[in-house]
Amino acid sequence: MQNEKIDFLKTYLSLYIDHNTVLADMQKPNSKYVVLDVRNAPAAIKKDQIKGAMAIPAKDLAQHLEELDKSKTYVVYDWTAGTTLGKVALLQLMSAGFEAFELSCALEGWKGMHLPVEKI
Amino acid sequence: MQNEKIDFLKTYLSLYIDHNTVLADMQKPNSKYVVLDVRNAPAAIKKDQIKGAMAIPAKDLAQHLEELDKSKTYVVYDWTAGTTLGKVALLQLMSAGFEAFELSCALEGWKGMHLPVEKI
Amino acid sequence: MQNEKIDFLKTYLSLYIDHNTVLADMQKPNSKYVVLDVRNAPAAIKKDQIKGAMAIPAKDLAQHLEELDKSKTYVVYDWTAGTTLGKVALLQLMSAGFEAFELSCALEGWKGMHLPVEKI
Repeated sequence: MQNEKIDFLKTYLSLYIDHNTVLADMQKPNSKYVVLDVRNAPAAIKKDQIKGAMAIPAKDLAQHLEELDKSKTYVVYDWTAGTTLGKVALLQLMSAGFEAFELSCALEGWKGMHLPVEKI
Repeated sequence: MQNEKIDFLKTYLSLYIDHNTVLADMQKPNSKYVVLDVRNAPAAIKKDQIKGAMAIPAKDLAQHLEELDKSKTYVVYDWTAGTTLGKVALLQLMSAGFEAFELSCALEGWKGMHLPVEKI
Repeated sequence: MQNEKIDFLKTYLSLYIDHNTVLADMQKPNSKYVVLDVRNAPAAIKKDQIKGAMAIPAKDLAQHLEELDKSKTYVVYDWTAGTTLGKVALLQLMSAGFEAFELSCALEGWKGMHLPVEKI
C-alpha cells in the first residue's frame, strides 16, 4: 500500500509546475514555458492575467491546438486550484502530444504571492 | 510516463461533474441527477444549499444508503473543493453501487457563479 | 471503470487525515501524531500555526529527515488545500520510510473550524 501511495503522489505531482520554476523561466530571453490562461470567462470578468500569458478558454482549446507550438511547454491555469478546468485543459494538451503542466495553486496562488500580472 | 499521466487525469476527471451539466439537468421535468449536500454541519451553520438538494451529512450517509434511488445519479458537494468530504461520500456511494459524481468546485464554486440556492 | 474509480478514490483518500482524528490524538498524554507545518515562509508571514506543530519548511525537509522519529506519524500541512506543497512533503516523508498524512483542508480548514492555533 505504501508503494501504491508513493506512486500515486509521484504521478499527481508530475502534473504540476510551481510558480518559482515558471517565474525563473519568464526572465530568460528565450523562455521554454508558455503560460496559458484557460479561464472560461470574458475579459471584462477576468480583468487581469499572469504577465505574458496566452489566453485560450478551455471550452475553445480543441479548436486552437493547431496554433500551438510543440517546442514549447504549456502551463495552464484557471481561477483557483479548486476547479477541474485546468486538468480538463491539461488532458487535452497532453492527449494532443503537447508537454504541459498545471500551475500549482492557479491564478489565486500567483496573485496571493504578488507575482507579475497584467491588465487585459 | 506521459500515458500514465493521461490515464491518471482521465480517472481523476471522471469523478467530477461540472455545474453546467447539473444546471441543465435541473431544468428538465424528470431530472437524472440528485444533488446531495453532504456537509457535516447543522442547518443553522449551513444557512443555504443548492436549490433542490437532498441533505445527508457524510457522517450519516452509511445509514441512509437504502433510501437512495439506484435509477438516479448522485452529485455530492461539500463547502469547498479543498475538503476531502465529497470524496469520502463519493466512495461510499460508488462502493454501494450508486452512480455518483463530485460537483466540481463544490458549493463555493456554485455560489461564486451565482447559481440557484435556497435557504434552509 | 467503476472499480478503477473506486481504487483511485481509496488511494487518494488514504493520503489524508481529518482534523477530528488529529484533534482527538492531541488530547492524549502520549500522542501518536506529530503535526508538521511545511509552509515555505518566515515566522513573520506565518504569524501562527496549529497548536504544538513542529515547523520544517518543505524546502528544508530533506536536510531534517534524520531528526524525525520513525515511531511517530507525521501530519503535514500548508496554507491551503489548493497548493501542492503538502504532497511534496508527504512524498519525501513516505519515500524516507515515515508514516505520514496530509491534513485534510490544510491550515485554512483548521482555522475555519476555529481549532487550536498558537502564535509564533
